[in-house]
Amino acid sequence: MLVDIPQPRLTTAHAGPLFPVEEVILSHVNKIEAWFRNQWIMSSPPIMTSVDLRHAGYKLAPVDTNLFPAGFNNLNPDFMPMCVQAVQSILGCKCASILLIPESHTRNLFYQQSLAVLRDIFIKAGYNVRLGSLDETVTEAFEITTEKGDVLCIEPLVRRGNRVGLADYDPCLVLLNNDLSAGVPPILQNLQQRIEPLTQLGWASRLKSNHFEFYNQVVTEFAQLIDLDPWLINPLFSVEDEIDFMQQMGVERVAEAVHQLLLRIETQYRLYDIEKKPFVVMKADNGTYGMSVMTIRDANTVLQLNRKQRTGMATTKGRQKVSRVILQEGVYSAETTQDGAVAEPVVYMLGQFVVGGFYRVHQERGVDENLNAPGMHFEPLAFAKACNIPSSNRECVDPLNRFYAYGVIARLAAMAASREIIALDA
Amino acid sequence: MLVDIPQPRLTTAHAGPLFPVEEVILSHVNKIEAWFRNQWIMSSPPIMTSVDLRHAGYKLAPVDTNLFPAGFNNLNPDFMPMCVQAVQSILGCKCASILLIPESHTRNLFYQQSLAVLRDIFIKAGYNVRLGSLDETVTEAFEITTEKGDVLCIEPLVRRGNRVGLADYDPCLVLLNNDLSAGVPPILQNLQQRIEPLTQLGWASRLKSNHFEFYNQVVTEFAQLIDLDPWLINPLFSVEDEIDFMQQMGVERVAEAVHQLLLRIETQYRLYDIEKKPFVVMKADNGTYGMSVMTIRDANTVLQLNRKQRTGMATTKGRQKVSRVILQEGVYSAETTQDGAVAEPVVYMLGQFVVGGFYRVHQERGVDENLNAPGMHFEPLAFAKACNIPSSNRECVDPLNRFYAYGVIARLAAMAASREIIALDA
Repeated sequence: MLVDIPQPRLTTAHAGPLFPVEEVILSHVNKIEAWFRNQWIMSSPPIMTSVDLRHAGYKLAPVDTNLFPAGFNNLNPDFMPMCVQAVQSILGCKCASILLIPESHTRNLFYQQSLAVLRDIFIKAGYNVRLGSLDETVTEAFEITTEKGDVLCIEPLVRRGNRVGLADYDPCLVLLNNDLSAGVPPILQNLQQRIEPLTQLGWASRLKSNHFEFYNQVVTEFAQLIDLDPWLINPLFSVEDEIDFMQQMGVERVAEAVHQLLLRIETQYRLYDIEKKPFVVMKADNGTYGMSVMTIRDANTVLQLNRKQRTGMATTKGRQKVSRVILQEGVYSAETTQDGAVAEPVVYMLGQFVVGGFYRVHQERGVDENLNAPGMHFEPLAFAKACNIPSSNRECVDPLNRFYAYGVIARLAAMAASREIIALDA
Repeated sequence: MLVDIPQPRLTTAHAGPLFPVEEVILSHVNKIEAWFRNQWIMSSPPIMTSVDLRHAGYKLAPVDTNLFPAGFNNLNPDFMPMCVQAVQSILGCKCASILLIPESHTRNLFYQQSLAVLRDIFIKAGYNVRLGSLDETVTEAFEITTEKGDVLCIEPLVRRGNRVGLADYDPCLVLLNNDLSAGVPPILQNLQQRIEPLTQLGWASRLKSNHFEFYNQVVTEFAQLIDLDPWLINPLFSVEDEIDFMQQMGVERVAEAVHQLLLRIETQYRLYDIEKKPFVVMKADNGTYGMSVMTIRDANTVLQLNRKQRTGMATTKGRQKVSRVILQEGVYSAETTQDGAVAEPVVYMLGQFVVGGFYRVHQERGVDENLNAPGMHFEPLAFAKACNIPSSNRECVDPLNRFYAYGVIARLAAMAASREIIALDA
């Protein structure tokens, strides 16, 4: 391939012995793949998923699973053929024309680029793709030229009966890349067309805690299969509801829950001789975009939030009020670059296929901090290798082996999401 | 990707305007992909296919379709992830263990390497793979170390009831990479197991002319779809049976048929103002391995074959006697390297997915000669880019666009093979 993306900067991806979780995963590749093959028959995967992972060395776990991913522009362009192949094998034959509904903040330069790549994947796979905006102020088609020179034509949506489309376009498939944080707009309700992902998976109704409940289930089954302590791939969590950060309502309950969670983590750390200080990440249970997220190292912090912190926690994307939080075991990042910046892997899937990923690399954040937060500038570092092929030598430390392990954990998260979907149907 | 395979040597892949066939194909990508999606539902593709193409500029056509391909070692190693993904999406969930049956000439160093790559594709996809030999002299397991250091363990086959396996291995799937030129051995007859490809597709019973009959059908439908003269992607051919080259039986008939075919080609050349001398390639109708192949520029040549030429035509691989020949329109190769060597593309598919290809490059052969012949040494030149994604600019000359066109023609050939399979079932 002509694009050569060196990764000399990452100290962990290419060095040191395999970590125990990786070792267990790599010694059971066939078992794992056979298990996945069977699982995907029972519950089909979301059409696209990105999974934020944290890799502490002793532990490798997903911390967020996004069904409306942006960031496709951060993937290695060499993986475009895999993305196209994946789309061709998941979409089936009945679909020929796609209406892609993006986020409304199409002025975001990074999002524009992601959208261009996402659109191109489907175009190159041989589908007609046009873009329709949920933004009601869009009344005429307009063009955006991305920084890389791609032209995106965004058009107003048109509803005809129980179908949605554009003025001269009646698509078979509506592809949502808008996370519907503000709810399902009427124009997308009661559609006759196939819509992916389902609108109920938008962040107005989806809960992170629900996802991680299903992830618990999935991990329990998977861990049994390969004889692994599930904690090693699963962050502990709990949920608190009826919170009002502005009114200081319920914060004592949150503080107590944080305290309990820290104790549970401490127990695990003792079990594994981990000499680190446990921490918790508090997130809006329906939050996204890295908004309303806080690292908490001490339960008392929750009682002493300043006005800025309380405001930060109180609303999330689309000005949705936060009244419910998920308290999630914080997972340290052992992935750092040679100059000490923290790196966090993000894995991308199309259907059941892991098609690539990248590292969020941040110079100024600590190993216990969230690298995806508004206003944060991370450097994306595309995975140079694929995530679906273990190395021929499964005992060596090799980016292929590490990325394969990432891909396995990401698939578990996608499987949890697929069970969310089944539960919606039921 | 870290492996960078430059292709500066090819003059045609990256230069000049798009040829008419390419232009038509690239202006109908969505129509073509939708058509393929529907077709693959009606007739599922062979598990693996390699297609020899000839690209004359004015014409781009398959000249041979192999269902037991070697040469996997010639593919760009960067495409391994695509191969793995393809295998995972075609094999289905019911299969976990594979018995791979290679050719018996495992001493051939190139074949060893191809076999190692083929095996690794399935291993990396998460299947158990072991190798069993049809060679009856193999009574004990033995190891081969390829030039690249891969170890292949070849074991004797064991038949138990109506299942075939190894001493301690009962596979779900028997994967044939042996073209069964000498017939279907009893150990593979009446198996209960799934076997791919079907043994009837071995060269003891398969006929090239039958394949090209189906290719005719496929091309007729396809050419209508995109309004293309089918001749531009289809080599004319005829068949002569009951020939004995050693006894000079039937050679007059062959000469006459060659004469007729040359006339038909000439008519086409006149239609397209092609100022080239028509030629015909005579091949054993059930031949393979580039054996029993001759370029014929003048019908009289057939009457004047010398002893060596007659012997060459009289038997093919596995000492099978040739009594039936296919006379195929010769397609000039416009693909040459900067130093004038002739290049011939070979495209590889796993199921319906085009996973890569390479050029056979030969310094000493002419543009009207077969580059795949025994004793011939061609230089493989891996395609640096994928064959499944047209370029964003479909009007430019770009390796992606050229390779995409190759992929389309290869898929038509694979579809012809899938119709051969349906006909076997019927």
